[in-house]
Amino acid sequence: MAPFDLRRIARAISAVENGGPDAEQVIRDAYRLARHVPVVGITGPPGVGKSTLLDGLAVHWAERGQTVAVLAIDPSSPHTGGAVLGDRIRMDRAASHPNVFVRSLASRGEMGGLASAAHDVVMVLGALGFDRIVLETVGAGQADVSVASLADVVILVAMPGMGDQVQAAKAGILEIADLYVVNKSDRADALSTIAHVRANVDLIYPGLPGRNVPHRAKATEHANPGLRRRHGSAADAEGYWRPPVLSTCALQGSGVSEVAAAADDFLAWLRETGRYRDRLHDRVRSQILGATRDRLLELCVSAAKARDFNFDELIAAVADGTLGACEASERLIAQLVPSR
Amino acid sequence: MAPFDLRRIARAISAVENGGPDAEQVIRDAYRLARHVPVVGITGPPGVGKSTLLDGLAVHWAERGQTVAVLAIDPSSPHTGGAVLGDRIRMDRAASHPNVFVRSLASRGEMGGLASAAHDVVMVLGALGFDRIVLETVGAGQADVSVASLADVVILVAMPGMGDQVQAAKAGILEIADLYVVNKSDRADALSTIAHVRANVDLIYPGLPGRNVPHRAKATEHANPGLRRRHGSAADAEGYWRPPVLSTCALQGSGVSEVAAAADDFLAWLRETGRYRDRLHDRVRSQILGATRDRLLELCVSAAKARDFNFDELIAAVADGTLGACEASERLIAQLVPSR
Repeated sequence: MAPFDLRRIARAISAVENGGPDAEQVIRDAYRLARHVPVVGITGPPGVGKSTLLDGLAVHWAERGQTVAVLAIDPSSPHTGGAVLGDRIRMDRAASHPNVFVRSLASRGEMGGLASAAHDVVMVLGALGFDRIVLETVGAGQADVSVASLADVVILVAMPGMGDQVQAAKAGILEIADLYVVNKSDRADALSTIAHVRANVDLIYPGLPGRNVPHRAKATEHANPGLRRRHGSAADAEGYWRPPVLSTCALQGSGVSEVAAAADDFLAWLRETGRYRDRLHDRVRSQILGATRDRLLELCVSAAKARDFNFDELIAAVADGTLGACEASERLIAQLVPSR
Repeated sequence: MAPFDLRRIARAISAVENGGPDAEQVIRDAYRLARHVPVVGITGPPGVGKSTLLDGLAVHWAERGQTVAVLAIDPSSPHTGGAVLGDRIRMDRAASHPNVFVRSLASRGEMGGLASAAHDVVMVLGALGFDRIVLETVGAGQADVSVASLADVVILVAMPGMGDQVQAAKAGILEIADLYVVNKSDRADALSTIAHVRANVDLIYPGLPGRNVPHRAKATEHANPGLRRRHGSAADAEGYWRPPVLSTCALQGSGVSEVAAAADDFLAWLRETGRYRDRLHDRVRSQILGATRDRLLELCVSAAKARDFNFDELIAAVADGTLGACEASERLIAQLVPSR
């Protein structure tokens, strides 16, 4: 796909984001096309250099002739009132590359819906003809959108000075990523952080034959090898993915092409082993459940409003102790589902 | 409250966590008592030293005769299969203090419910007689529980090397906290990080009289001063809270008592200005909405199961492009809410 019809693309994404009647048709068409392009997700704590790495990866693939859509998902923006300035600053190489389209996606309120919108935007970007989507979730601890639920390959970025084992465990780091990157590798303590992350990967993926264990295996699966076959795929026997630990200095561009190559290796492995389809299934499942949850709450609040249900009174009753929160929730639910 | 009846406390919390029939009574009694004790929440990216600071704060208040419940909320633990070892390691002073009770609260599945359980546990801890609750959310980016929705005072912890303005904005840092702490202040670049965080606070709370602006003000409120009075409280005129920026070296214990004092100042300010009640209202509101959302999804999935609704077929249809995700969600919803 080249050159971009930027106006058309921007209009389609805005329609999806704003959720008008135009959006419905755009989204429906996108799902009908079912063009599932590789989605590369980057995650990790703030300040480790996710956007800089993302910029480098997008340019890497763009220079090899691919059209790349970069999506920054910002659940914290109800606070900041819009998309985050930072992404534009850190993604200046990608943003000015003719093969790259950069877009932020912001949250719009307490009813949720960002995760669902993000899934829709990913489908629409695929339908628009992009070869690849690279995405990042920004915002600290407030995220209701996990990269893992959107991406085919999850890259977790860490940096020197925060890599000890306890922290890695607390960061939930070790079982969600397909690829680990220690960025800012020019720092003095980079080597020890890399060693720590490797040690953590060893902890999760202990010495099975060839030191390989099932992809995203859980602790229980090590204890019970039978569980490894839960996908029921014959390809299970063909080989396992052991997440590599790479180092980059994304600001200087060093190590970025190795990360891109590892991501592509992983995508190839997913396809070869038939797991690509399993991931897609998991993703669609979590998308439908998430959309259902958000939509049910909307319907419930609307139903309550239509019946002049006094929500403020309910809140005050819980605060004062005349009603438990669970009973309050049941009363709200009864506005939508009366007879149970 | 002293001495602890540890067995009774642990049993009550476990009942709430496991959600059995015992739990209902425990939770109902707790809400009826409506003993709202101060909840201090600590947030920030992994590796900045949240647990160490939390340990110091808990011991600080415990040494002054208060009974303190420490709650570590771990949304990432479906991955790690249980509560996080790290908390015990980092909270060794608090855990061995006779006035402190330490407990982890873990997530149990894709249906959510952790946020709701956390609200219940906070109420139960209040009812059990604790003077204060200190809590931390662990897990990177996967959190569906925000400290801000649970705590009366939110302390955001940063560390040197991650404090530039873009990062602070991306971390969603600036509008959720009542108090900023730069930990690991013995590091070489601590001063510049403190200056960055201060500059960010200046950006959000620009030079109004006395450089004070409404607590948790949003950008729009600066533009329209009338909006400031939205709480309708006369106390609005009495003074604003400008979040202080403090530095600590929690491992050595330096600066911790200043953070404790600032948190207590903020709590006193909340009560004096009548905002404590507003916060409680907001918290109860988000709790009820969250519980409603989770419960509705549960009900919907149960209803679908009872009718032998084929969810896997639905997922496959979306993956193959014969059905949009939104339509799929509507079909699932129709299992619970047939006539719309």
